[in-house]
Amino acid sequence: MTMQNKLAWPKKITVCEVGPRDGLQNEKVLLTVEQKIELIERSVQAGAKIIEIGSFVHPKAVPQMADTDEVVKKMKRVDGVEYRALVMNLRGLERAEAVGIKKAKLTVSASPTHSLKNLNKTPEEAVRGFAECAKYAAAHGIELSGAISTAFGCCFEGRVPLEQVISVVKCFKEIGVSELSLSDTTGMANPQQVYEYSVKVREQFTDIDWVLHFHNTRGMGLSNVMAGMLAGIERYDSCFAGLGGCPFAPGASGNIATEDLVHMLSEMGIDTGYDLAEGIAIGRRVREFIGHDTDSSVLRAGRCSDIVIEQ
Amino acid sequence: MTMQNKLAWPKKITVCEVGPRDGLQNEKVLLTVEQKIELIERSVQAGAKIIEIGSFVHPKAVPQMADTDEVVKKMKRVDGVEYRALVMNLRGLERAEAVGIKKAKLTVSASPTHSLKNLNKTPEEAVRGFAECAKYAAAHGIELSGAISTAFGCCFEGRVPLEQVISVVKCFKEIGVSELSLSDTTGMANPQQVYEYSVKVREQFTDIDWVLHFHNTRGMGLSNVMAGMLAGIERYDSCFAGLGGCPFAPGASGNIATEDLVHMLSEMGIDTGYDLAEGIAIGRRVREFIGHDTDSSVLRAGRCSDIVIEQ
Repeated sequence: MTMQNKLAWPKKITVCEVGPRDGLQNEKVLLTVEQKIELIERSVQAGAKIIEIGSFVHPKAVPQMADTDEVVKKMKRVDGVEYRALVMNLRGLERAEAVGIKKAKLTVSASPTHSLKNLNKTPEEAVRGFAECAKYAAAHGIELSGAISTAFGCCFEGRVPLEQVISVVKCFKEIGVSELSLSDTTGMANPQQVYEYSVKVREQFTDIDWVLHFHNTRGMGLSNVMAGMLAGIERYDSCFAGLGGCPFAPGASGNIATEDLVHMLSEMGIDTGYDLAEGIAIGRRVREFIGHDTDSSVLRAGRCSDIVIEQ
Repeated sequence: MTMQNKLAWPKKITVCEVGPRDGLQNEKVLLTVEQKIELIERSVQAGAKIIEIGSFVHPKAVPQMADTDEVVKKMKRVDGVEYRALVMNLRGLERAEAVGIKKAKLTVSASPTHSLKNLNKTPEEAVRGFAECAKYAAAHGIELSGAISTAFGCCFEGRVPLEQVISVVKCFKEIGVSELSLSDTTGMANPQQVYEYSVKVREQFTDIDWVLHFHNTRGMGLSNVMAGMLAGIERYDSCFAGLGGCPFAPGASGNIATEDLVHMLSEMGIDTGYDLAEGIAIGRRVREFIGHDTDSSVLRAGRCSDIVIEQ
C-alpha cells in the first residue's frame, strides 16, 4: 500500500493568544496599562483573531490583572477579533460587560480532587454554578467559552480519565456553552492521549467548537498540537514568548510559545494568518517588559530561514 | 466516518544514544576516559541497544574524541549491543577495527554547497570516496552505517530537496551500506517534511534500515519524531541531557534529549526498553561532568508521574 505524502492536518489553524492573561498573570513584574495595550494591539496586528486580554477577578487574588477594566477601555479594537476575558463569577462577568467585552471564559478543573480542594465543589457542581453567568451572558449578548483545566492530567490524581472530561463537557453543554477548550494545565498530556481524547470528544459532541491548550513542561507541547491537528482540531492557545510556567514544577516551561507554534505551522505549510516576524518582535518586547529570559525556541534560535547564509 | 482512537505508531522504538560522540564533542570540557566509560556503560545498562561511543578522527581536529581508542579498550561490552563509532576515512576505520569496533558510521552532507565547502567534494563524490572503507569493512566484518547530514535543511542552501537526499542514498547503496540516517543537523526539519521524506525513502529503498536524527533547535524535535513514527520509522538518535547545540545558532538547543524522548514514548505506551529513571540519573550525571545546564525538559520538570502528589 502506498502511503500518502501528506498527513491529514487542517489547512488552516487559528492561534488564540493567551499571553495578556495566562502569561502575564504568572509574572512577578506588574506591567503598566500602556505596556499591556501595546502587547494586545500588536498581537492583533500580527494576526491574532482570538486574544485573551485579561481577567475580571478579585484584584487581591491576581494583582497582575487588577487593571483589566482600564486596559479594555483604552485599547483599540479591531472588528472581527474576539477579545476574550476570564471571569470566575457573575460579578466578573458584569465587569466584563460594563467595558464591552463580548466573550468570556469560564474555567473548571476536570479533576474532582483539584476542584474540591480549590472550590469545595465537584467539577460538575462548579459548572452548574455558572448557570447564572450563562443566563446573564445570553441576556447581554456575551459569548461564553468553557475551559476544562487538568483535562489530561492532574497533580493530585495523575491521568484524568476521558469519562471524567466528558462528564464536565456535558455540564457545560447543559448551561449552553458551545466552545470548549481542553487544557493541559500541568503539562502532562502526551500525543497519544491528546489524539484519543480529541477524536472522542469531537465525535460525541459535534456541535461544540474545540480548542486545545498545551504547556511545554515536558517538551511535548508542539507534539500535542500535531496530535490535535491529526484529530481535526483547528484552534490552539499559545502565549507570546512562552510565558506561563507550572506551579508544580518550578523553572519548567510554560505555555507553548506563540512564535514557536506559528513557526512550526508556517514551516509545515499550514496557514495561521499570523505574521511570524512580528510575533518574534512581540516575544522580544515581552522579555524586555518582564526582564528575564523565557522558554521560546524561536526567540533563541531564530527561524529556519534566519540561518541561511547569503553567499 | 469514525476515526481510529490510535494513530499508527510503531509499538516499539529503538533509541540510539549518540551522547558519548555527538554530545560530548560539542563540549568545551574534556571528560576523562573513566567518565566516558561510566556514561557509556550506564546508558547500555539503562537500555541503549545502539550507542555511538566516540569517533576515530584526528585528535587535533576533535580533541574531545582523542581518547576513543582507550575508552573502547577499557569499557565493558554487553552482547547484543551495537557500539558504533564515527570514522572519516580508512585510517579511522583501521583504528576502530584495531580495538574491536564492529559498527562504523560514515557521514556525508546532503547539501552540495556544504559538502564542497568542507571537503571540496560533492556529496556523491564524498560517498564514493568511502568505497575503500566499504571494502575494508566487508573484509573485517564491520557493519557500516551512513549518516546523511543536513538532510532536511542547510544553512547555505535552505531546504534540501528530497531528490538530492535520494541521490546520496543511491551512492551509499552502491558502496553497500544498508543502514542510513537522515540527520537534521541544523534543526530545520518540520513534521510535514519529515513525514514526506520518510515515507518516500522507505518506499523507494525497502532494503535499507532507516534512522532519524533530530535536533530540538526550534522546538520541533519531538514533533519530528512523531512524524517519523507515523511514517513507520523505528530508530531515533538522541543524546543524554540534550547536549549538542547548533553552531549556527549559539545558545540553541542541541540533539533531542534521550530522557525527553524516552519519557514521551513511555507516556504514549510505546516500548523503548529504556529505564527512564536511570536515563534521568545519567542526564544529571552528564550535567555534573560538563558543569552546566542543558536543554532537557524532563531534567528540568521531572516526569509526569513525579508531580503527582500523595494525599
